[in-house]
Amino acid sequence: DNSDKKFRKLYETDIYNKDGLNGYAYVPNGIAVAVSNPRNETMPGTNPEQLLGLSLSTCMNATLQAIERENDLDHTAEVHVHVTMVKGTDGLEFLVHAMVSIPSVSYERAVELTNQAEQRCPVSKLLSGSINYTVETLQN
Amino acid sequence: DNSDKKFRKLYETDIYNKDGLNGYAYVPNGIAVAVSNPRNETMPGTNPEQLLGLSLSTCMNATLQAIERENDLDHTAEVHVHVTMVKGTDGLEFLVHAMVSIPSVSYERAVELTNQAEQRCPVSKLLSGSINYTVETLQN
Repeated sequence: DNSDKKFRKLYETDIYNKDGLNGYAYVPNGIAVAVSNPRNETMPGTNPEQLLGLSLSTCMNATLQAIERENDLDHTAEVHVHVTMVKGTDGLEFLVHAMVSIPSVSYERAVELTNQAEQRCPVSKLLSGSINYTVETLQN
Repeated sequence: DNSDKKFRKLYETDIYNKDGLNGYAYVPNGIAVAVSNPRNETMPGTNPEQLLGLSLSTCMNATLQAIERENDLDHTAEVHVHVTMVKGTDGLEFLVHAMVSIPSVSYERAVELTNQAEQRCPVSKLLSGSINYTVETLQN
């Protein structure tokens, strides 16, 4: 429960899924995406795995972009997220692995900037309590 | 670290953001979404907040759909996710609130099924370590 934390609200949005795994998810007056079972390859939709990866990769790269700006660096960072759906003793789980590359700086500096982004990106913060979430800095 | 857990891989996917907050995020040979700063209302793109809500609402409703099927219920569940971006003493954070309605059953039964879905949905599991993630069952 976060009711004792002090926040200033900057933005809010509403998202709906009324169909389930096959149909549409949407933002009123905004984006709608066709969704389908990821294990049914004849269906054209996206799925929770990809949508989570789109969210995390964009959040991490937006954060890296801000960090690059603060350090007078051009924006060269890229984020690749690999999501795996697995079945284990606790049922279905997603493994989420984020890979960061920052070609304009040394590997050591890229690791530092990746660590900063991991601490600041709101989606990364939400996932940081899970052992299924991992972040890696790629060698150029 | 989850390296000692035993998993069977069912599906995997790759997602990229090379642009940052303004541009595109995409799945190779799959969906591409235009993204933009959520606080710039003249830009048409979606954003990490909405993409996370699309992921969570679809995952939760797909899980509810499976639970309904197991209980010989028609699929009537709907999931509404409200995401708020806030700024606090720890920087930017997202508050993620999922609201479940299951019109075909009593409120007490809907609470039970919501709790099951919260424990089983892989996206919900990933978020469950964060105090910023909350789930509510709505009265019909």
